[in-house]
Amino acid sequence: MTSTEAPTADNGVNVDFLLSAREALAAQPEGAQFKWRVSNTWVNGTHSQSTVNGFFGLGEEQNHRAEFTFDGDHPELFSSEDQGATPVELLLASLAGCLTAGVAAVAQNRDIQLKAVTATLEGDMDVRGILGVDPEVRNGFNQIRVTYNIDADASPEDIKALVAQSQKRSAVFDIVTNPTNVIVEVA
Amino acid sequence: MTSTEAPTADNGVNVDFLLSAREALAAQPEGAQFKWRVSNTWVNGTHSQSTVNGFFGLGEEQNHRAEFTFDGDHPELFSSEDQGATPVELLLASLAGCLTAGVAAVAQNRDIQLKAVTATLEGDMDVRGILGVDPEVRNGFNQIRVTYNIDADASPEDIKALVAQSQKRSAVFDIVTNPTNVIVEVA
Repeated sequence: MTSTEAPTADNGVNVDFLLSAREALAAQPEGAQFKWRVSNTWVNGTHSQSTVNGFFGLGEEQNHRAEFTFDGDHPELFSSEDQGATPVELLLASLAGCLTAGVAAVAQNRDIQLKAVTATLEGDMDVRGILGVDPEVRNGFNQIRVTYNIDADASPEDIKALVAQSQKRSAVFDIVTNPTNVIVEVA
Repeated sequence: MTSTEAPTADNGVNVDFLLSAREALAAQPEGAQFKWRVSNTWVNGTHSQSTVNGFFGLGEEQNHRAEFTFDGDHPELFSSEDQGATPVELLLASLAGCLTAGVAAVAQNRDIQLKAVTATLEGDMDVRGILGVDPEVRNGFNQIRVTYNIDADASPEDIKALVAQSQKRSAVFDIVTNPTNVIVEVA
């Protein structure tokens, strides 16, 4: 017999694992110290390629199942060759991926079955900043808007709460909304 | 006869165009208001796919030469399927692409011939933040280190100055090191 208390949602997230990882890393904080890495190689002009492969976590070197590569470039509008997304679009993709993974994980934890989740992101930029026209204009985005469309077995209030909790636990949302220390050196 | 004053470096960046764009957008700031966009679709579990296509700039809708897609996921270590880079690795790729494009553009402007540019990026994260173990631990990176290896027709001091100027004009460096307003809504 199935208990009415048993979770029925299956969003493909192993919440039991995440809860046990939380417990294990609370007891062994040194295992929680991760290092995420990218290597980048200039191709030509504003075009470069980034490669993601290994990372460090749970006390040892780890590998992805496969190597992931990302081309970055500027568009033809800026007299570049448009061989890849612009770096700021890649940043929006990073934010989107983080928030959406969070939505799925939180939904699983709350036993909410997701049917479809899409998001559109838009970042406003005054390019007079990066072109050095006006020192009062920042280089980055003035604002980023993220709009979710979520079809799920839940009330509109519960869906809003899902998205709010995802923001609260999102690594990239934190990095973008708060200052992060970046040290750039030449070897 | 070639003047000794004529630029000789060719890094594939059209600096004349960028300088004329700077002038044109100083006179017409409304053309400098860009909107960069990404759409994101949840696949399963922590796996989602982001798509980059059009953007708004120079007063009208623009398109990339091609559509760019990026898969984001969590690694097997977190009991996910590792169908793509983690969102925080994508963020490092974004930062790398922005700084390297800047190095090439600044080198062109200073008539420095680049031969090879590579960078390694590493971000430290205490995953007790995203797992909700300790509210004192932030979700994002504690620090990001970027190390450039640059082979160019220039002194070590000039190469360091290139990288410093690239940081100063980088959109993503600004977004990561300073707070950026992000509004998340449910449609």
